[in-house]
Amino acid sequence: MTLLESLQKTFQPSHPKTSSMVVVGTMAFDSIETPFGKSDNIIGGAATYISLAASYFIKNIRLVSVIGGDFPKEQISLMNHRGIHTDGVQVKENEKSFFWKGSYHLDMNTRDTLVTELNVLATFDPIFPESYQECEFLMLGNLTPTIQKSVIERLRTRPKLIVLDTMNFWIEHTPNELAQVLKMIDVLTINDAEARELSGEYSLVKAAKNILERGPKYLIIKKGEHGALLFHENNVFFAPALPLEEVFDPTGAGDAFAGGFVGYLAQTNDISYDNMKRAIIYGSTMASFCVEKFGTERLINITQEDIEERVQDFVDLVQFDIALVD
Amino acid sequence: MTLLESLQKTFQPSHPKTSSMVVVGTMAFDSIETPFGKSDNIIGGAATYISLAASYFIKNIRLVSVIGGDFPKEQISLMNHRGIHTDGVQVKENEKSFFWKGSYHLDMNTRDTLVTELNVLATFDPIFPESYQECEFLMLGNLTPTIQKSVIERLRTRPKLIVLDTMNFWIEHTPNELAQVLKMIDVLTINDAEARELSGEYSLVKAAKNILERGPKYLIIKKGEHGALLFHENNVFFAPALPLEEVFDPTGAGDAFAGGFVGYLAQTNDISYDNMKRAIIYGSTMASFCVEKFGTERLINITQEDIEERVQDFVDLVQFDIALVD
Repeated sequence: MTLLESLQKTFQPSHPKTSSMVVVGTMAFDSIETPFGKSDNIIGGAATYISLAASYFIKNIRLVSVIGGDFPKEQISLMNHRGIHTDGVQVKENEKSFFWKGSYHLDMNTRDTLVTELNVLATFDPIFPESYQECEFLMLGNLTPTIQKSVIERLRTRPKLIVLDTMNFWIEHTPNELAQVLKMIDVLTINDAEARELSGEYSLVKAAKNILERGPKYLIIKKGEHGALLFHENNVFFAPALPLEEVFDPTGAGDAFAGGFVGYLAQTNDISYDNMKRAIIYGSTMASFCVEKFGTERLINITQEDIEERVQDFVDLVQFDIALVD
Repeated sequence: MTLLESLQKTFQPSHPKTSSMVVVGTMAFDSIETPFGKSDNIIGGAATYISLAASYFIKNIRLVSVIGGDFPKEQISLMNHRGIHTDGVQVKENEKSFFWKGSYHLDMNTRDTLVTELNVLATFDPIFPESYQECEFLMLGNLTPTIQKSVIERLRTRPKLIVLDTMNFWIEHTPNELAQVLKMIDVLTINDAEARELSGEYSLVKAAKNILERGPKYLIIKKGEHGALLFHENNVFFAPALPLEEVFDPTGAGDAFAGGFVGYLAQTNDISYDNMKRAIIYGSTMASFCVEKFGTERLINITQEDIEERVQDFVDLVQFDIALVD
């Protein structure tokens, strides 16, 4: 069996009935400035990026979010067409969707938030349709920890895996609420600066030990162009980001990563540590596509072959033959 | 064969007669301040770190450097004891050795140079003993490009592999001299900021393409705690740095990396791309030891078992089983 054949094998769902996955998070308009250009009022939001990336892996994605009357119906249709259910997306016809405007520096690892308009998000109370109750994989995109917690509590059966993303704003402003929800989840994804802030430790190894004592069994620290680390008990796994000629727009890369990660776990229905390593490679793959164009443009236009080739690029990037011996 | 047995096999010289290696560079006194402490007038210098790291791989290391009468004789004895020949180390009894004082920031990836006293280095004209002429592997530590070039010209037979390290100072102040020596070498090692400065490209992929057109067939971009990239033709290989609980003192890490890299290549006498990948893992291994203590303290106290265990840590860190299929 060639490596590519093995990848193809890996990539296909191993179970005829794929798992169900619920994604909770924002759907938004973004205005983005990067050193390479600007784009006004394009589709964005954590749940948008997460579900689009995951849709390359499974077809039973159930979205929980809120949008205003200004959110384009065609975007909803596009997502439905990709197997993303939107029964749990509330439409507040007379209000405006969440809006974010940001500007990236040359290194693309740092950005300034210029405008945040909560709009519909200010009063968001997630609706959980009955059809969503059978939820094996739950991905909680970045949102206020109170809402993330309420979602978990509204599920009658605890999902097989709960993954949560958060950010510095909640670490600083709602530490107690965040601490509560951290006790209820399996995997936490945050970036390196946030891991340092949450733990009070500069060393990421020490930060990880500290955070793993707060509840999550797995911790993924995202380092942007410097890759991602997975911590679990005393194990650590590292996946680089793919070195790209151009990073066009980093917006959504972390969410595309999370979508690929959880999507792959749901597709394979295997939450072992070894499968999480593979899932991180698939997450990194989806992030590497995401940054190639503005907004979600690249994420809605990927082929199965693109994904297989890109995963092969990751294999070539890190593989050395000491690792190939039994 | 277990993985560890395979590592042990890899680690032993595959040829009874190991290759010869010449190291050219500074031997110095350093005063270092890090967030964890300070250390005054300890032994440092690129050639010191390079040759100590390489001495774990081969025993025919020939050093070319210059020191003052103040340089401790015991340090020379220690190096001789580790198989490092010092016939090419000039001693200027009435002068002082090169001195550097620097201070590291909390992130340990940036530092300020507080004092540089060239002393003996100001008039350094490398001596090349006849016994050094048979040189298969030449490692040119960071020095003025004119001296690096003169060393290559003084060798009657071109070495099998010439590796050169440089820094921002030479990129800015002697670009023409640097351009000349770049045409004469095989492998260039520089850090990410220097790669960007030398090429004028922000993207490291574009920077690498640019630099590979200037002479070197291989380019290693060192990213400190974020690992190292190897570029060759259209190939790219990435090795992470090992996530450590504490980075005590990063001084010499890049040189320890270079020493492990060239030392392993010389030991195995194999300069193929695949072996360079392995050599980078050994280089990263030596760098990971170097930063654990101040100065060269850790580098003079490593066992074969330490190295094997540490390489295994690197395997565990990046290995995912997609890469293990034929």
